[in-house]
Amino acid sequence: MTGAECLLRTLVAGGVEVCFMNPGTSEMHFVAALDRVPEMRGVLCLFEGVCSGAADGYARMLGKPAATLLHLGPGLANGLANFHNARKARSPIVSLVGEHSTKHLAYDAPLTSDIEAFARTVSEEVFRLESAAAMGETAARVMAAARRYPGRIAHMIVAADYSWSEAGAVGIMPPVERPRVPPVGEIGRRAGNWGILLGGGTVRGRGLALAARLAAAGWRVLIDRNAARVEAGRGRFQPRRMEYFPAPAQAQLAGLTDLVLVEAKAPVSFFGYPDEASYLVPSGCQVHELAGIEEDGTEALEALVDSLGLGAATWAEPETVPVPADGPLTLEAIGQAVAALLPEGAIVSDEMVSSGPPVLAALPRAARFDYLPVTGGSIGQGMPVGVGAAVACPGRKVVVLEGDGSGMYTPQSWWSMAREGLDVVTVIFANRRYRILDIEMRRTGANGFGAQSEAMVDIGRPELDFVQIARGMGVASSCGRSGRRCGSRGRGSLRR
Amino acid sequence: MTGAECLLRTLVAGGVEVCFMNPGTSEMHFVAALDRVPEMRGVLCLFEGVCSGAADGYARMLGKPAATLLHLGPGLANGLANFHNARKARSPIVSLVGEHSTKHLAYDAPLTSDIEAFARTVSEEVFRLESAAAMGETAARVMAAARRYPGRIAHMIVAADYSWSEAGAVGIMPPVERPRVPPVGEIGRRAGNWGILLGGGTVRGRGLALAARLAAAGWRVLIDRNAARVEAGRGRFQPRRMEYFPAPAQAQLAGLTDLVLVEAKAPVSFFGYPDEASYLVPSGCQVHELAGIEEDGTEALEALVDSLGLGAATWAEPETVPVPADGPLTLEAIGQAVAALLPEGAIVSDEMVSSGPPVLAALPRAARFDYLPVTGGSIGQGMPVGVGAAVACPGRKVVVLEGDGSGMYTPQSWWSMAREGLDVVTVIFANRRYRILDIEMRRTGANGFGAQSEAMVDIGRPELDFVQIARGMGVASSCGRSGRRCGSRGRGSLRR
Repeated sequence: MTGAECLLRTLVAGGVEVCFMNPGTSEMHFVAALDRVPEMRGVLCLFEGVCSGAADGYARMLGKPAATLLHLGPGLANGLANFHNARKARSPIVSLVGEHSTKHLAYDAPLTSDIEAFARTVSEEVFRLESAAAMGETAARVMAAARRYPGRIAHMIVAADYSWSEAGAVGIMPPVERPRVPPVGEIGRRAGNWGILLGGGTVRGRGLALAARLAAAGWRVLIDRNAARVEAGRGRFQPRRMEYFPAPAQAQLAGLTDLVLVEAKAPVSFFGYPDEASYLVPSGCQVHELAGIEEDGTEALEALVDSLGLGAATWAEPETVPVPADGPLTLEAIGQAVAALLPEGAIVSDEMVSSGPPVLAALPRAARFDYLPVTGGSIGQGMPVGVGAAVACPGRKVVVLEGDGSGMYTPQSWWSMAREGLDVVTVIFANRRYRILDIEMRRTGANGFGAQSEAMVDIGRPELDFVQIARGMGVASSCGRSGRRCGSRGRGSLRR
Repeated sequence: MTGAECLLRTLVAGGVEVCFMNPGTSEMHFVAALDRVPEMRGVLCLFEGVCSGAADGYARMLGKPAATLLHLGPGLANGLANFHNARKARSPIVSLVGEHSTKHLAYDAPLTSDIEAFARTVSEEVFRLESAAAMGETAARVMAAARRYPGRIAHMIVAADYSWSEAGAVGIMPPVERPRVPPVGEIGRRAGNWGILLGGGTVRGRGLALAARLAAAGWRVLIDRNAARVEAGRGRFQPRRMEYFPAPAQAQLAGLTDLVLVEAKAPVSFFGYPDEASYLVPSGCQVHELAGIEEDGTEALEALVDSLGLGAATWAEPETVPVPADGPLTLEAIGQAVAALLPEGAIVSDEMVSSGPPVLAALPRAARFDYLPVTGGSIGQGMPVGVGAAVACPGRKVVVLEGDGSGMYTPQSWWSMAREGLDVVTVIFANRRYRILDIEMRRTGANGFGAQSEAMVDIGRPELDFVQIARGMGVASSCGRSGRRCGSRGRGSLRR
């Protein structure tokens, strides 16, 4: 059995069943081994950022790692931006990176680079395979590292000759430690104006139901803006997410005497501004950590609710939205249409940036869905995350809500959607600008645009024709302007 | 004067007049300052890999740096693959990277990352600005570092508050040391079968003319396959480039007793293979370094030719090619058409990969042109390098010869071509496969494709429609199949 086959069999035995890949020469034996290990599904992506973003989306949906396979340092480099996002999402990912054969490394060939240095930019978990014989055991350790709660990117650098040489036994993944359940202590015991910020695994079914009981008891419940996957829609308790800009975020926290963090960090603003705070917790408000990022916040939440003796809760359910009648194609109308048409169990990947608020405002009235927001702020994740979510959840509709600026970082995602027959609808909000930078330009105190600076946020000359771009990659597309509906479509329309 | 304005004025004073950029919030003051420093041309790119590749193309053509401006660690990450190529091309580049304001860095906001770690993957020259007052002086040192012969990527990490704070004086670039001219010593004095490998700055006018005199005296003259810019075409002495695969490259060197290196390293194969050599110099052949990578090889070459007393040389000039008659659209026919129609002074950026050899075989019969090959092997450089070359040389036709696989890494280049009205013709060789991997699959000994592995090199399902993709970004395009001419066009056709 070659090293490559051993690697694949070890991954499959450890539950890693999908590999998002963009292979090169040094990964040919891995590619060839796919024919002998059909349990591993290879998903080809035309750009590496699609691979890493797709693995993030997959992990967010299933809580377990997919693999990525990238070609040497520069291939990994192209995947780093979405690995950054995956790292901030705490997504488990097994990142396989091919390396020159060990003999060849001495010669500083054109593609030689310091792969470890690239890998360490997004993770401390970097394993360099030391021999073909160690393939199985190393891959098993890499999987275990990736699965440490809530999840990590674990890189494994595999020299080509270790792939083509005879390997040892298939590796068996060591047991993964369960996350610690921290004690509740005195949290919530004394009188005060208590708030709680939910993140990580607590913004889903059980965690939200527990949080509803706190809300019914007068607690202010908020959701970490960058939590990786939020279960939302009618029938669920839907706390507000933290706002993006400092002032409204501070307003959300104003008046609290105590803020409890559960798998979340104390809220800070996305960017720093000349005369605004970065740290958003009001002065005088005491911060308590109920569960850290790597602890079991849901169990801790249950213990908290029990310790306070809180009973079942009800909340005001938002009404459904009718499908809007024909009319101007505003952001509000799009939000209504999405809320009205989103099928039960849909998955929404959001990278709308400045177009977001009016659309998101309508979504609590949609049927149950999973919401995948921006986590690390590196633009170009929306569509790749949609690819991964669709691969992870084949029976569910995926809707990617994407800006036009942000849509141009990883448009190659469309090809993989078409290739794999994924049920993804991408809506591009084409305002023809880096609109968020209009806002940020004012906020950073750099007033006004002249001709040169204006050109750096105006992406409307020439106008991008997303319908043609998406069709060029095999995705059915259409465009609506002023009064007509628009969007580019995957395998089907939003309602089918 | 804000720090941002000081930075721009320092760059312009040091001859850095173009900035390929994809800015974000932390770079807004830099963008605003463009209005006050109109001598700096901002070129907006929709993806960071276009910025870094364009700066590489610009530097290869002019031998001086452009700037890039990228947004935080993840923005830099997206530029790294083409920085890798630029590094192997020894291109001078001033890489500006925005950072959170210094106050904000403490809070581990979503976009916080270790920018220095990203930067160091492609260069040792990493400068972190320490205060707004130091802006001018630091930028001047960064430019000097970039210009150290033959060129380096020099990063400057600029925290947002240093851009918006009051700065000190505009910096004055310290004088840049001229490269050393090494002594000739005993090179070429004794009898033998001498060969010489030219790289760096020696594969242009004067160096090639000197090499012709060596060739006339019986020396075997070869060109470093990955030399950044080769002056070629009729009227010039055109030595063969080193071959890609080990066996033909070894054949080029067979029988040599002595190999002289001039701004080049001893030839090694691109990849390592199970039963082939990585180091390609025949055993028993003595290697002499006439000039290292950072030395003045052209002066050294002149001294060598003088020391050997070699006179003027002539060589057999290849004949011109007629425009081919209508017929099957083969690679050979395309090569002939390009050779026949390439206008004097054109620039050819080559990332054809497997389609290359038949096309390149025709090009020595073209009018004088500059040839920009793959340098670092990270795919996705062809079109960005074309963008930068066209910005650098507005009067000259740029032709990008691009594979379909490689064309999908940085297709956003087309938008910048259209935006800037660049005179670039892109020819996509759409063979619908990662064809080079067919070859590499055999060579690495991973025999045969099954259904799964086959799918990882087949990029023809669905078929990419490059005409639509390019049109979607504002570039006029057309397609030819079997017997008709094809290609996607920039501002004009090849002959205009």
